[in-house]
Amino acid sequence: MATAHRHKLRLDPKTREEARRRLLSIRGHVEGVLRMLEAEDVYCVDVLKQLKAIEGALDKVGELVLRSHLRDHVVTAHERGDVDTIVEELLEVLKYR
Amino acid sequence: MATAHRHKLRLDPKTREEARRRLLSIRGHVEGVLRMLEAEDVYCVDVLKQLKAIEGALDKVGELVLRSHLRDHVVTAHERGDVDTIVEELLEVLKYR
Amino acid sequence: MATAHRHKLRLDPKTREEARRRLLSIRGHVEGVLRMLEAEDVYCVDVLKQLKAIEGALDKVGELVLRSHLRDHVVTAHERGDVDTIVEELLEVLKYR
Amino acid sequence: MATAHRHKLRLDPKTREEARRRLLSIRGHVEGVLRMLEAEDVYCVDVLKQLKAIEGALDKVGELVLRSHLRDHVVTAHERGDVDTIVEELLEVLKYR
Repeated sequence: MATAHRHKLRLDPKTREEARRRLLSIRGHVEGVLRMLEAEDVYCVDVLKQLKAIEGALDKVGELVLRSHLRDHVVTAHERGDVDTIVEELLEVLKYR
Repeated sequence: MATAHRHKLRLDPKTREEARRRLLSIRGHVEGVLRMLEAEDVYCVDVLKQLKAIEGALDKVGELVLRSHLRDHVVTAHERGDVDTIVEELLEVLKYR
Repeated sequence: MATAHRHKLRLDPKTREEARRRLLSIRGHVEGVLRMLEAEDVYCVDVLKQLKAIEGALDKVGELVLRSHLRDHVVTAHERGDVDTIVEELLEVLKYR
Repeated sequence: MATAHRHKLRLDPKTREEARRRLLSIRGHVEGVLRMLEAEDVYCVDVLKQLKAIEGALDKVGELVLRSHLRDHVVTAHERGDVDTIVEELLEVLKYR
């Protein structure tokens, strides 16, 4: 998992900040579902709807980070000389996305 | 969203407890990613891996709740007389799952 | 795979016909992509777009069949007495949907 | 859809051939489901299993083409000067994958 190129490549600060902001909101959403689950009469489908909404919000964060990674690191991999690593680790993370 | 049958149908207590337990762990996982994102040298693919792991954990909670809903409420819908509502709200929540 | 209840439960004729109609169109779509792939200058992203469209069309067929299964067989499982089989085989097929 | 860079970028011949081979098999699989649907006693879940298997096979073709696109075109986008197009069209096709 610790690969040589990791030390050179970094998530850009603006995307990092935006991802943080969104994850804070996702944490709040998870806490909302935890509160829902304290009620004895919570209905299954209402829980399923909230879980789906949280996954949608996580997908959005993933898309942000992926766009940033593509623009900053993937499109320059040939110049940098780490094509194999970049492509295989990206395919791994895209599986079943 | 508030449907007549909601007041009668409840997530069973054991599943509710198990879902809570898992969501507490998911909240911890989200907080872990928030800490990762504080580091200036965090690598995009490491963030994407963690987001994917969190989605996998949410899928597990969803499967638990879905199994419970199917066993306790869906298989008895015809007897209860709320087939239309049960089927349509379930299909809605399964979309793009 | 061959379960006792299979011999009693059948996909309703109207849905069966609609599924057939849609799958004929999907076969045509697959043949369209096969023709695309004969061209030496086909572009990767154009192929990916078509594959995605075919998966979308298959999802639609799946939703049709699932709705029919829920309405005709799942909501009556308790009356029929095959809850365990119905729930587990359904969860199996919904995984990673 | 017709973009300037399309005329320069092509799916590599080996991947094109492998994708064709797999799509021929997928067409056969679709025809198998069409035959299943001719039987009056076909069971819903058996159809759903086959649809899921076909989607799995399409995902495999998609992964092949995506790997080839990443290696041949995405990692060289910066050198070529079409980063914006390459990144946005890729993100579009990866959505809900």
